[in-house]
Amino acid sequence: MIPAPNIYRKRQQALRSKLQRAGLEAVIVSHIPNVRYVSGFSGSSGVLVVTSKQSAFFTDGRYIEQAREQVTADELHSQGALLAKSAAWASRAVKGAVGCDESHLTVKEWQVIKSTRQRGLRLRDASGMVEGLRVIKDADEIEKIRAAVELGSKLFESIRDRIRPGVRETDIAAEIEYAARKGGAEGMSFETIVAGGARSALPHGVASQRLLPARGFVVLDFGVILSGYCSDMTRTVHLGKPDTRARRLYQSVLRAQQSAIRAVRPQVTAHAVDQAARGVLHKAGLGEFFTHSTGHGVGLEIHEAPRLARKGREKLKPGMVVTIEPGAYIPGAGGVRIEDMVVVTQGGCEVLTPTTKELIVI
Amino acid sequence: MIPAPNIYRKRQQALRSKLQRAGLEAVIVSHIPNVRYVSGFSGSSGVLVVTSKQSAFFTDGRYIEQAREQVTADELHSQGALLAKSAAWASRAVKGAVGCDESHLTVKEWQVIKSTRQRGLRLRDASGMVEGLRVIKDADEIEKIRAAVELGSKLFESIRDRIRPGVRETDIAAEIEYAARKGGAEGMSFETIVAGGARSALPHGVASQRLLPARGFVVLDFGVILSGYCSDMTRTVHLGKPDTRARRLYQSVLRAQQSAIRAVRPQVTAHAVDQAARGVLHKAGLGEFFTHSTGHGVGLEIHEAPRLARKGREKLKPGMVVTIEPGAYIPGAGGVRIEDMVVVTQGGCEVLTPTTKELIVI
Repeated sequence: MIPAPNIYRKRQQALRSKLQRAGLEAVIVSHIPNVRYVSGFSGSSGVLVVTSKQSAFFTDGRYIEQAREQVTADELHSQGALLAKSAAWASRAVKGAVGCDESHLTVKEWQVIKSTRQRGLRLRDASGMVEGLRVIKDADEIEKIRAAVELGSKLFESIRDRIRPGVRETDIAAEIEYAARKGGAEGMSFETIVAGGARSALPHGVASQRLLPARGFVVLDFGVILSGYCSDMTRTVHLGKPDTRARRLYQSVLRAQQSAIRAVRPQVTAHAVDQAARGVLHKAGLGEFFTHSTGHGVGLEIHEAPRLARKGREKLKPGMVVTIEPGAYIPGAGGVRIEDMVVVTQGGCEVLTPTTKELIVI
Repeated sequence: MIPAPNIYRKRQQALRSKLQRAGLEAVIVSHIPNVRYVSGFSGSSGVLVVTSKQSAFFTDGRYIEQAREQVTADELHSQGALLAKSAAWASRAVKGAVGCDESHLTVKEWQVIKSTRQRGLRLRDASGMVEGLRVIKDADEIEKIRAAVELGSKLFESIRDRIRPGVRETDIAAEIEYAARKGGAEGMSFETIVAGGARSALPHGVASQRLLPARGFVVLDFGVILSGYCSDMTRTVHLGKPDTRARRLYQSVLRAQQSAIRAVRPQVTAHAVDQAARGVLHKAGLGEFFTHSTGHGVGLEIHEAPRLARKGREKLKPGMVVTIEPGAYIPGAGGVRIEDMVVVTQGGCEVLTPTTKELIVI
């Protein structure tokens, strides 16, 4: 499943074009999903420095074997103090400005780099530079994301008949996570949400020790990590026969979700997609109960650009992969959220999540 | 399992003593395990500001219900932009210096706080201030850690007979994680390590898709999170009859581990405990194959102070909880690591991990 090394050469080359445009001679890539993206390294401790001509990878003793196997770079170093060593290397390799990631480096880490004064290191912020590449997924990435999304959907099918009144929320989470592992996932992409009854009104109701009630909504929101890429899906089912109000709530959220999906195409702004969902819920009198944004990018990280939010100014482009997940939460009563992942195509978008969105009544 | 709110009042009071000694009038607590420790909040988005007289908690809309339930503080705020809001509140509440956590705040986050200039915010580093309290566990914490460690040991017993030649490493990880969830764990405290045969020589061999070999060591290193507190244990078993070299390797690591445990008592420095293990392996001719440190503190986070490393200068004190986990890794052949958690007592230490350390041959 590891892509041919030339993918990483290609990504490093793309980063070099960005360097040049930013007036930088090198960049210290330290945020670990960024390191993976540009070097191929899947461990938890590594730094890649990219200059216009070379790249050098730094890791610690634990990972040297793995780095030799995975990493695309001109040099491999395995000493401790990765940031200090990589900054020293950069300051020897180039004379001009060196970019670093102020969005992820802690103040202390930044000070370590800054204090590297061999031949005078000129440090500049290069936040978001690698993320700017990552926002458009290449064919290899889309296939990996598709595989992760399909595994997620299979999990939902495989545990559907476990969702019953009296079952502990964490027991359902356990079944999902077990099936994920057996299906090849490296792990879950975030803490599994299983929220039944009144808890379904918590937009972030991670599985608790509570038992599912005889009657009411159950929100299931979970994702896997497969070959490094995340999936994310939400389905809301109903225990017992839903009354008219519950059906209306579900149908409104579903219409909002479908409206947002229809809005996804190249050149549309993120906030327009958000508005497509928000408008439907507003008209249904549910606007105040939709308390989060409509979606977010997904890839090596569970939350990436673009953010499909009220103030999202980014324009969608082919190759972006986003969630579409409006919800409505009536405090004390219950809530509904429905979430698919979609990839932006030339003509609009493709929904990656194959699971039905018809209301499942158990 | 939530401790009485007065524990948090007490911890805030302890933090105030530290504030005074550091010449600070307030501290912005933003690192989420620290937030949990001083406020009781178990969510993923919250900031607590503590002044000599008051405390104020900031979270976002998703968590307001949970914060009302859990948090001990004089004020509760639930707007977005937590750092900006909390910095603004601090700058109104006090005139003197305000501490923040430069070890965890990113450069960008620090800039957000720094740019808060109402009445002139004087910002100072207060890294490690809450961690300085957390390093000594109180009785409530030790009981929680004990429960987490005991759950971890039970998991090992429950999956022991799954460890067989031909079984996929990730399938064993799946069984451990499933049993953890069913046992009440909120999750795993780190990525589960199951490393068989030559992979056992990787000190950080997270479970892979490979099958366990007919013969060789299998290192299992895993931990649970229970009521917020982490456990951490490693056992190494042998598939097939171990030859003399393998037995000797195992016994040397075991002797090193026992030697380090015997060294643990109040006033002993961290490096002395490390040396107790390292010396045994050195004498056995295995010094060069012990490539990491002997142990680390464990609590709300899986890696905390003190670090039991070559250069560890900290002195052990009653109430510290640490791992003791020497190992020896012969590249290409195999490795052994044995890890318990211990709590430092007045007279020495108590081993919390009940699992046998006799070599298990399967």
